[in-house]
Amino acid sequence: MAGSLNLSGLLRFSSSREEALARAARRDAEKAISLCRALLSEGGEAASTRLAGEVLDLYHGFESQARDAFFDALNAEFSPDPAKILAVAEAYRKDTTAQNLQRLERVVEAPRQELFRRLNTVPGGTKALVLMRAQLLQTLSRNAHWEPVACDLSHLLSSWFNRGFLVLQRIDWNTPAVTLEKLIEFEAVHQIQGWDDLRRRLERDRRCYGFFHPALPHEPLIFIEVALTRGMSGRVQPLLDPAAPVTDPSSADHAMFYSITNCQEGLRGVAFGSFLIKQVVEDLRSSFPRLRRFATVSPVPGFRRWLSANLDQLASLPKFARLAELAPRLEEAAWFKNDELSSELRGLLVPLCAYYLLYAGRDLEPLDPVARFHLKNGASLDRIHWLGDTSLSGRERSAGLMVNYVYRLSEVEGNHERYVKDHEIASSHEVRGLAKQVITAAKAAGVRLAV
Amino acid sequence: MAGSLNLSGLLRFSSSREEALARAARRDAEKAISLCRALLSEGGEAASTRLAGEVLDLYHGFESQARDAFFDALNAEFSPDPAKILAVAEAYRKDTTAQNLQRLERVVEAPRQELFRRLNTVPGGTKALVLMRAQLLQTLSRNAHWEPVACDLSHLLSSWFNRGFLVLQRIDWNTPAVTLEKLIEFEAVHQIQGWDDLRRRLERDRRCYGFFHPALPHEPLIFIEVALTRGMSGRVQPLLDPAAPVTDPSSADHAMFYSITNCQEGLRGVAFGSFLIKQVVEDLRSSFPRLRRFATVSPVPGFRRWLSANLDQLASLPKFARLAELAPRLEEAAWFKNDELSSELRGLLVPLCAYYLLYAGRDLEPLDPVARFHLKNGASLDRIHWLGDTSLSGRERSAGLMVNYVYRLSEVEGNHERYVKDHEIASSHEVRGLAKQVITAAKAAGVRLAV
Amino acid sequence: MAGSLNLSGLLRFSSSREEALARAARRDAEKAISLCRALLSEGGEAASTRLAGEVLDLYHGFESQARDAFFDALNAEFSPDPAKILAVAEAYRKDTTAQNLQRLERVVEAPRQELFRRLNTVPGGTKALVLMRAQLLQTLSRNAHWEPVACDLSHLLSSWFNRGFLVLQRIDWNTPAVTLEKLIEFEAVHQIQGWDDLRRRLERDRRCYGFFHPALPHEPLIFIEVALTRGMSGRVQPLLDPAAPVTDPSSADHAMFYSITNCQEGLRGVAFGSFLIKQVVEDLRSSFPRLRRFATVSPVPGFRRWLSANLDQLASLPKFARLAELAPRLEEAAWFKNDELSSELRGLLVPLCAYYLLYAGRDLEPLDPVARFHLKNGASLDRIHWLGDTSLSGRERSAGLMVNYVYRLSEVEGNHERYVKDHEIASSHEVRGLAKQVITAAKAAGVRLAV
Amino acid sequence: MAGSLNLSGLLRFSSSREEALARAARRDAEKAISLCRALLSEGGEAASTRLAGEVLDLYHGFESQARDAFFDALNAEFSPDPAKILAVAEAYRKDTTAQNLQRLERVVEAPRQELFRRLNTVPGGTKALVLMRAQLLQTLSRNAHWEPVACDLSHLLSSWFNRGFLVLQRIDWNTPAVTLEKLIEFEAVHQIQGWDDLRRRLERDRRCYGFFHPALPHEPLIFIEVALTRGMSGRVQPLLDPAAPVTDPSSADHAMFYSITNCQEGLRGVAFGSFLIKQVVEDLRSSFPRLRRFATVSPVPGFRRWLSANLDQLASLPKFARLAELAPRLEEAAWFKNDELSSELRGLLVPLCAYYLLYAGRDLEPLDPVARFHLKNGASLDRIHWLGDTSLSGRERSAGLMVNYVYRLSEVEGNHERYVKDHEIASSHEVRGLAKQVITAAKAAGVRLAV
Repeated sequence: MAGSLNLSGLLRFSSSREEALARAARRDAEKAISLCRALLSEGGEAASTRLAGEVLDLYHGFESQARDAFFDALNAEFSPDPAKILAVAEAYRKDTTAQNLQRLERVVEAPRQELFRRLNTVPGGTKALVLMRAQLLQTLSRNAHWEPVACDLSHLLSSWFNRGFLVLQRIDWNTPAVTLEKLIEFEAVHQIQGWDDLRRRLERDRRCYGFFHPALPHEPLIFIEVALTRGMSGRVQPLLDPAAPVTDPSSADHAMFYSITNCQEGLRGVAFGSFLIKQVVEDLRSSFPRLRRFATVSPVPGFRRWLSANLDQLASLPKFARLAELAPRLEEAAWFKNDELSSELRGLLVPLCAYYLLYAGRDLEPLDPVARFHLKNGASLDRIHWLGDTSLSGRERSAGLMVNYVYRLSEVEGNHERYVKDHEIASSHEVRGLAKQVITAAKAAGVRLAV
Repeated sequence: MAGSLNLSGLLRFSSSREEALARAARRDAEKAISLCRALLSEGGEAASTRLAGEVLDLYHGFESQARDAFFDALNAEFSPDPAKILAVAEAYRKDTTAQNLQRLERVVEAPRQELFRRLNTVPGGTKALVLMRAQLLQTLSRNAHWEPVACDLSHLLSSWFNRGFLVLQRIDWNTPAVTLEKLIEFEAVHQIQGWDDLRRRLERDRRCYGFFHPALPHEPLIFIEVALTRGMSGRVQPLLDPAAPVTDPSSADHAMFYSITNCQEGLRGVAFGSFLIKQVVEDLRSSFPRLRRFATVSPVPGFRRWLSANLDQLASLPKFARLAELAPRLEEAAWFKNDELSSELRGLLVPLCAYYLLYAGRDLEPLDPVARFHLKNGASLDRIHWLGDTSLSGRERSAGLMVNYVYRLSEVEGNHERYVKDHEIASSHEVRGLAKQVITAAKAAGVRLAV
Repeated sequence: MAGSLNLSGLLRFSSSREEALARAARRDAEKAISLCRALLSEGGEAASTRLAGEVLDLYHGFESQARDAFFDALNAEFSPDPAKILAVAEAYRKDTTAQNLQRLERVVEAPRQELFRRLNTVPGGTKALVLMRAQLLQTLSRNAHWEPVACDLSHLLSSWFNRGFLVLQRIDWNTPAVTLEKLIEFEAVHQIQGWDDLRRRLERDRRCYGFFHPALPHEPLIFIEVALTRGMSGRVQPLLDPAAPVTDPSSADHAMFYSITNCQEGLRGVAFGSFLIKQVVEDLRSSFPRLRRFATVSPVPGFRRWLSANLDQLASLPKFARLAELAPRLEEAAWFKNDELSSELRGLLVPLCAYYLLYAGRDLEPLDPVARFHLKNGASLDRIHWLGDTSLSGRERSAGLMVNYVYRLSEVEGNHERYVKDHEIASSHEVRGLAKQVITAAKAAGVRLAV
Repeated sequence: MAGSLNLSGLLRFSSSREEALARAARRDAEKAISLCRALLSEGGEAASTRLAGEVLDLYHGFESQARDAFFDALNAEFSPDPAKILAVAEAYRKDTTAQNLQRLERVVEAPRQELFRRLNTVPGGTKALVLMRAQLLQTLSRNAHWEPVACDLSHLLSSWFNRGFLVLQRIDWNTPAVTLEKLIEFEAVHQIQGWDDLRRRLERDRRCYGFFHPALPHEPLIFIEVALTRGMSGRVQPLLDPAAPVTDPSSADHAMFYSITNCQEGLRGVAFGSFLIKQVVEDLRSSFPRLRRFATVSPVPGFRRWLSANLDQLASLPKFARLAELAPRLEEAAWFKNDELSSELRGLLVPLCAYYLLYAGRDLEPLDPVARFHLKNGASLDRIHWLGDTSLSGRERSAGLMVNYVYRLSEVEGNHERYVKDHEIASSHEVRGLAKQVITAAKAAGVRLAV
C-alpha cells in the first residue's frame, strides 16, 4: 500500500515538478518577450543597447523549454498582421502605385526582423543570432510553425554575411589558439586528432584558409585545407599522415583541396564554399607560380547507399554479375588488404562509381551531394581512385573510392553555366569511358537501368 | 549670311553633339544594365564577382546622363511585378497561411535588392553602393520616380550599417593620414583650416572619436570632437584656437562636445549620433575618472530665422519693443564688439532664445534641429551663452548664441522616454526662467504668441 | 683468423671513418671561418648581408664536431692581438690622453664582436647568436678556452636585450599557437601537460605575461604565471588543477605568482625576472583595483639537500631528535597521506625550513636560489606552507614545503637596498619566530650550528 | 651720472643674474648626476627604472648651461680610472692571459656606458639617448673634452641600431600623421612644401620607404623617395611637381631614387643608406617585375665650389677658354632660360662635371660627397644631365647639373670591392668619354691639372 502510495506520490511530485519547470520556463520566456516589446517600442531607443543586452543574457540562460516558449512567442507575437496586409493589398489592387507598394512591403515584413536588428546592436549580438538560428533549425522539424521565424533570421543573416563583408584569412601556426581550436572542433570530413595532427596540417607544404566575418573575429565561417604536392593525389591517407615529411612547397605543381568545412550551423544555406575555393585558387596561384593544377581529393558519400539500393538490378547485368557475391564482402573489416578481392572489386566498382556520379538519380542534378557542390561550382570530374580513402568512414561511404574534381579557372564559368542551364556535367574522357562500360553492359543485357 | 549659316551649323552641330552624347550615355547605361541582368540570372553565380566588378567599373565611369539612365532602368526593370503581387495577394486573401505570406514577401521585394547584394560581393562594393545612394539623393527631388530605388538602397544600407557592425575608434595624430584628411573634408560645424588646425584638435586635451564600418576601413561614418576642460565652456572660439596652450587632460572635470559630423551623404537617415555620444561618454568616463560633466557646446541654427519671421509680434511686446530698432543692427559687421549694444541685445535675445528652444514651433518637437537631436537623445537643455560663437556663421545662425546640452547617463533614458511619449523637454531651472520672461511679457501685453 | 682480421679491418674502417668525419667537420668550419674573414674585410660591406646569411646557414648545419672547430677558430683567430695591446698600453702609460685611451679600447675589443654585429644584420641573426651562446655554454666546462668567446657574446646580448627593448605582452588563448607551444616546451617549475592544461592556465582567473624582443617576436624570453584568488594560496596543486572551476577575477584580492620561467638558455645571466615581476604587479593593479596582495607560491628547491647534509647535527638537538628516525621516511611514496606522520614531520620541518631560508649558508646571501632571487628583488619572506606541493618533485626538493614571498611595492626598494648593502632579509614575524625555535634549541643544547 | 650709475647697476644686475642662472644650471646638473651615481650603485637595481626616469625628466628640462655642466660631469666622473688601467695593463704585460685581457676590457670601458644602458631601461630612454648624442655633437667642436662621451654613445647606438633590428616600412598615405610630419620636417634635398606636396609624393606612382627601430616606432631613421617612371629621368622638377598627373606604376620600367634623407642627427655616422637602397631595390623588383633599371637622380653638391676654385687653370685650356667669361654669368638669375648661353655653358660644364666626378680631388675617393656615397655602395656613374635641377639650390650647388647613379644588383658587390680596394670608379662609357675631353684638352695645352 505504502509502496503504491509512494509511487503515486512520486508521480504526482514528478508531474508537479515538471509543471513547475514548465511554468518557470514560460516565465523566463515571457520576461524576455516583454523586454523585446520594450525594445521595439517608440521609447525604447535610448535604452536599446541595455534592453538588447538583457534579452540576450536571458536567452543565453534558457533551457530548451524556455527557448521553445520564446520561439513560439516570436512567431505568435512578432509576425505581420494579416488584417493590415489584406487592407494594404486591397489598396494596392485598386491603385498599384509605388506608395502602395512600399506600404505593402512594410506590412509584410515581420516586426521581428526589426527586433533582430536591434538585438544585433550589442557586442555579441551577431553571434547570438547565429546561435538562435542554429537552435531553431535543430528542432524545426518538430515545430513547423517556427518556419517563418527561421525564414526571417535566414533572410537577415544571408544579407549580413554577404561575401563583401567576409575576410579571407590564412590560418597557420601563427593563428591564435582560440581560432585553431575551432578547426579541431569542426573538421568533420577528416577529423583532426588533437594539436599535433593540426600542427602538421598547418606546415609549410599545407595551406589552410578561412572566411571570417568582422563581428565574429575568432570563428571561421568555413575553412578549407590544401596540400601542396608534386603530382595529383588520389589517396588521402598520405596527405593526413602527421608523420609525413614536410616538403618544399615551392617545388609543388599541384594544390590538392582535401577538406572543406562549414562551421556555423546557424548559417546553413548561406553559400560561402564557391567563393572560398575560387579566392584560394587565386591566392595560391600568385604565391606559387609553379602550381599548374588545382583539384580536390573528395569523398563520394552516397555511393555505397546507391549501390545497395540498386544491387539486384546491377548484378543482373552479366558483366557485373560477380557483384552479388562480392558486394557483401565490403562488410569485412580488411577486404581492402586482400589483393585479389580488392582487384576484382576494383574492376566492378570503379565503372559503377563513374556511372553513379554522371547518371545516377539525375533528374536535373547528380545524386551525390559532393558532386553537386563541385560541379555546380564549375569544376570538372577528373579521376576516380581505387582505395583513395581506406579509413572506416571512407569504406562505409564509398567502398574506399575517392574522386578528383579539377578547378580550371578558364573553364569554371562555362562549366557552371552549362551545369545550371543544361544540366551538363563537365568530366574527363576517362571518367566518361568508365561510365560507358555500365551503359554498354546494360544495353547488351537489354536492361533499362532505373537509376 | 555666312554668320547666320555658321550659327545655325553650330546649333545643329551642338544639338547633334548633344544627341550623340545622350546616345553614348544610354549605351553605357544599357551595357551596365545588361551586365546586371546577367548577374541576376541563374547562370551568373560562377561569374558573379567578375560581373559585379564590371558593373561597378562602368558605374564609376558614368557621367550624369548615363547615371540618370541607369537609375531609370533600375526603377523600370528591377521592380516587383504588379501582376505577380496581385495574384499572390489574392491567394493570401483566400488563405492567410505562412506559406502564402512568404510568397507575398518574396514577390514584393524588388529584384534590385538582390542585385545590390550581389554588387556588394566585390571589394569596394559597399562603398560604391553608399555612393550610389548619395548620387540618387542628390537629384531625387527632380526624379521622384527613383524613390523606390532609393528606398531599397536605404533599407539594405541601414541593415548593413547596424550599430553591431560599427567600430568605435579614437582618432588622433597616430591615425593614418587617409582618414585624417576626411575630417578636414567633412567637418562642417566648425571648419578645419588645414593640418595645423587639425593637429591642435587632436592634442591630448582634445579627443576625437569616429564610428567605422569594416567595409570602409578608412572612412569615418560620423565623428565627434571633444575638449577636456576645467569648468563648463560656453564659448567655442577658445576651444577652436589652434594656438591655445595644451592643458593636462587628467585635471579636466568637463568633457565638452563641440562638434559632431556625419560624413556619408549616402547614409543619410541612418542614425549613428545617439550611439556615438553614449559610447564616447562611457569611454571618457573610464579613461578620466575625474570628469564629472559631459555636455555639448552647440549652435542654435534656426534662431535668427525664427526671430526674423516673428519680429513684428515679438517687438509688439513692450518688454521687447527695443527689438524693432536693435534686431536690424545684427547685420552690422562688428556689433558684438560694441559693448553697449551687445549688452542691450543680450537682455532681449537670451530670453527669446530660451523661449525659441522650449516652445517655438512646438507641435510635438522643437523647431531647432540641433535641439531635436540632443533632446531626443535624452540630453537636458542646460545653459545659453551670449557671444558663445562670434564667427560669421555663428552670428548669422544665432546672433552668436551657443547652448549647452548636458548628458547625464542616469537621466538619459528617462528624458528620452518623456520626450518621445509626452513631448516633454528636459531643461534647467535657469533656462525655463528665461523663457518665462517672454511668456509673462506676452501675457502682460495680452498677446497670444503665434509661435 | 678471418675474424680477427675482420675486426681489425672494422676498427681501421671505423677509425678512418671517424677521421673522415673529423676532416669534413674541420672543412665545414673552415669554410664558415673564411666567410667570416670576408665579412670582416674592408671590401665585405656590400656583400655583408649575403655573407652573414651564408655563415649562419652553414652554422645551422653544423654537427657538434664542426661547431667545436668553429668555436675554436672564433677564439684563435678573432681575438685581440696581444702585441698591439701591449704597444698601445705602453703609449697610454706614457701619455694617458683620451686619444690613447680610445685606441686602447679599440684594440682590447675582440674583432669577433664586430663579426657578431655583422652576423646580426640578417633576418634570424639575433636568434642564431642566442642559439650560438646556448651551444657554447653547453660544453663550455669542457672547453675553458672558449670563455672569451662566450664572454663577448654575453656582452653583446645583454646590451641588445636591454630592458628598454623588451615588450611586455599578455599571453592568453588569443595568442598565436607558435608562442603558446613554447610555454608547454619551457615551463619547468610546474610542467604543462599538453594543450588542455595550458588552456586552463590561460583562463580569465589566471594571467600569463612574457617579455618579448622585437627580433624574436614569437618567443617569450621569460614568462610568469599568475592565479587571481580570494585569499593567499599556500598550496599549488589547486592552482594547477585543470578541472578547477573558473572564478570571477574581479572578485579576487590576491595575485599569486606560481611560476616564472626563463626560456632562452642563450640569455642565461641576462636578468629579466625582477623587471617582469614589477611590471606585472603594476599592470594587474590597474586592471584589478581590488587586488591587495601580490605574492608568490614558491618552491624551496635546496631544502632537502641541506637537510640531508646537516641531518646529524640537527638530530643532535634534543628538540629535533626525532629527525633521525623520521627524515628517512620522506623517501616513502605516500608519507604525506599518513596524517600522524605528516603532523609530526610538520612540527620538525617547518621551523627548520624557516631557519634554512633565513640563516643557512649565509655568508652574504641565502643558500636557496629561489629565496636569493625574490629577496634580492625586494620581496619579503612571508609564510611557509606544509604540504604546499605534494607532487613528486615537490617532495623531493622540499619535503612538500612551499613558501610565499610577498611583493609590497612601497617596500621593494628599501628591502632590496638592505639586502644588497647589509645582507638583511625582509621576513614576517611568523617566519622569524619559527626560525628562532631552531636557534633556541641549538643554544639550549650548547650546539653551534655549522650552517 | 645717473645714467652711468644705472648702466652699471644694470650690468651688475645682469651679471649677478647670469651667475644665478649658472648656479641654478650647475645645481640641476648636479642633481641629475647624483641620481646617475645612485643608478650605478649596487643598491640602485630595484629602483633603477624610477631613477632612470628621473634623470631623463631632469635632462629634458635642461637649458643649455645645465646640459653643458651635465656633459662635463659625464666626462669628468664616469670615465675609466687611469690608475686601474695602468695596473691591469701592467699585469697583462707580465701575463697575457685571457683573464687579464678580460680585466683590461672591463677597466677601459667607461662606467658611463653602463649608465647609458640603465638610462635606456625606461620608456623613451632610447629616444633620449639619441637626442643626447645629437646635442653633444652640436657643440662638440667647442667642447673637445666631451669627445670620449660622444664616442661611448656612438659605440652603444651603433650596436643598438644594428641593421638586424631595423624594420623596413613602406610609407604612404595610410601611414600615421605622426610619422608623415617627420618627412616634411626632415626632407632636406628637395624640401616638402606642406601636406599637399607630401600627398603627391606618396601617390601610387611614387614609393617612399623608411627604416624604423622598434624603440622609436613613429620616427623614420632614414627614408628614401622613389618615382616609378617610363624611361630614365634626368630632370628632377617634373618628379617633384605636385600637379603632375599620376601614372600607372605597373607600366613603369624605371625606378628613380630622387631623395634619401637621414632623420636622426643623434645617429650621425651610423650607416643605414646602403642597406636601405638595396632592400628597396629588392622590394620594388618583386612588386613590379617590369622594372628594369634602378637609378638615382642625384645632385652634384660640390661642383660649383670646385669650379670656382679651379677656374683659372681650367680657363687656361684653350678648349675651355670661354669659361673665364661665361662662368661668372652663372650668378645671373635666369641664365638657364637663355638658350644660347645655356647651350654654350653646357658644352663646357658637362665635360668638366664628368671630370670632376671621376678625377677631382682623388687621392683615394672622389671629392663629391654624393658620388662617394653611391659609388662606395656599388653603384655606377651613368649619366650627366644638363638643367637637371633648375631650382635655386640646384643652380648654386651644381649649375643645375644632375647625375644618374645606376644600381645593378649583379654588379654592386664587384663595384664596391673595386672601389674600396683599388679606388676604381664604375662609370659608363659616355661619362668617361666626357671626362676624357678635359684630359685631352689639358694634354694638348701641356697643362698638368692640379686637381
